[in-house]
Amino acid sequence: MFKYLRKAHYHETDQMGLIHHSNYVKWMEEARIAFMDELGLSYRSLEESGIASPVTGINVEYKKPVRFDDEIEIRVSVGRYTGVKLEVKYFIYNVTSGELAAEAISSHCFIKDGRIISLKRDKPELDEMIRKSMEGQE
Amino acid sequence: MFKYLRKAHYHETDQMGLIHHSNYVKWMEEARIAFMDELGLSYRSLEESGIASPVTGINVEYKKPVRFDDEIEIRVSVGRYTGVKLEVKYFIYNVTSGELAAEAISSHCFIKDGRIISLKRDKPELDEMIRKSMEGQE
Amino acid sequence: MFKYLRKAHYHETDQMGLIHHSNYVKWMEEARIAFMDELGLSYRSLEESGIASPVTGINVEYKKPVRFDDEIEIRVSVGRYTGVKLEVKYFIYNVTSGELAAEAISSHCFIKDGRIISLKRDKPELDEMIRKSMEGQE
Amino acid sequence: MFKYLRKAHYHETDQMGLIHHSNYVKWMEEARIAFMDELGLSYRSLEESGIASPVTGINVEYKKPVRFDDEIEIRVSVGRYTGVKLEVKYFIYNVTSGELAAEAISSHCFIKDGRIISLKRDKPELDEMIRKSMEGQE
Repeated sequence: MFKYLRKAHYHETDQMGLIHHSNYVKWMEEARIAFMDELGLSYRSLEESGIASPVTGINVEYKKPVRFDDEIEIRVSVGRYTGVKLEVKYFIYNVTSGELAAEAISSHCFIKDGRIISLKRDKPELDEMIRKSMEGQE
Repeated sequence: MFKYLRKAHYHETDQMGLIHHSNYVKWMEEARIAFMDELGLSYRSLEESGIASPVTGINVEYKKPVRFDDEIEIRVSVGRYTGVKLEVKYFIYNVTSGELAAEAISSHCFIKDGRIISLKRDKPELDEMIRKSMEGQE
Repeated sequence: MFKYLRKAHYHETDQMGLIHHSNYVKWMEEARIAFMDELGLSYRSLEESGIASPVTGINVEYKKPVRFDDEIEIRVSVGRYTGVKLEVKYFIYNVTSGELAAEAISSHCFIKDGRIISLKRDKPELDEMIRKSMEGQE
Repeated sequence: MFKYLRKAHYHETDQMGLIHHSNYVKWMEEARIAFMDELGLSYRSLEESGIASPVTGINVEYKKPVRFDDEIEIRVSVGRYTGVKLEVKYFIYNVTSGELAAEAISSHCFIKDGRIISLKRDKPELDEMIRKSMEGQE
């Protein structure tokens, strides 16, 4: 499974002394883009080809705190995928504490010229890449 | 129902030309704290009394985009409340476009000295305030 | 002098228990855009007319801390203006503590089609507005 | 000279299509903390020993844009140091474009029990480390 590594930064803490919960949503995006890069699906070139992939939903369950300077490992994988809608799953591990810090899901669609497109129909090569990554997950 | 108003700021946009989705989680917190103030439950004094109220989960469904300078109105109310766990519900309206931009839920517990407490048992006056706000919602 | 008011938010704190210094740069932008609106120089319509006004420099002197829930008042005015380069000055007051929290300057140029333009020559009506706001400052 | 590497993230862009200028201030902090770690001056243990090192000033000159996914290299060094006040210098390179993106300085003091301390007097071992790093810079 794809792993994205980063540190928790000082500017991400809040006065509770922990990483503020809104930052996990940014980390998920970083991990998702790195995961797509790994699949050969560069987000930069996706956008340059006129396709945007907006987030239609997020769900985060916070389990254990993350503190400044902790090492974070995010395991990313494709959840459900219909050819039109994509769900990405995240397990956010706090390597420093050895705990699962959070589990999360983000939902996405794909948009071209202001309209939702079917990757299956309009971008079969991307559709293929996503399906392939799902096989590898078993 | 309590309404929290604010503008969408330039520094909250991303290169898609829309407000980045992570900011909604910050807006929810702003609206929740203003709502609690309104209930008489100042978050500042809550923390000063040694109680923290961490976020244990968030769920956001993004429906319509928000753009720079749009006026946002967030309607906040208590969802489920057990005396120990609290769910807060949000309807995020884009006043400028006249559309419902997002629906969201955040889940919370209450912690004192590192342990989860029951507001019902340990802070009956807060418990009362939350229950009262729920009556008003019908 | 133009005044921009806002609260310091919880998500802007860090584990020192104070507002993180990077947020002041965002507040300056909010205040500057509100100030420009007041001058009749809507940043939204400026961008829609193809002109961007990037930040070329910032300078912030932090004097006194700001805490969660403090009321902030930012006094904004034009500093130096050459017709091409614009400097904006900020006094950031912490209304809650009654202290001057920070003094700051941001520098800007104006860009159209990838090139720096002279407002004086290419947008005389904007040039006029900025000069007028400077008169009012004495 | 110490080098801190990181990518420019999508959530750091704004609707101008560039990295928003406020993020550079966060990057400077990340780079400074990594630099201090390298010196043997862990910011985490500094804070645990009761010493905070607030930012008293920042100065950033933005020279060339940074875009999403660009590789950034920040060269960090000690500028002026008096034993009480510390200035840190940054050269922010955009490795992807091969350009110097920004030059910056941050100013700091050291605080214990709410009062400014002299590292030279109160923490001679830290004072020594900072002075040593300056020798290496010639």
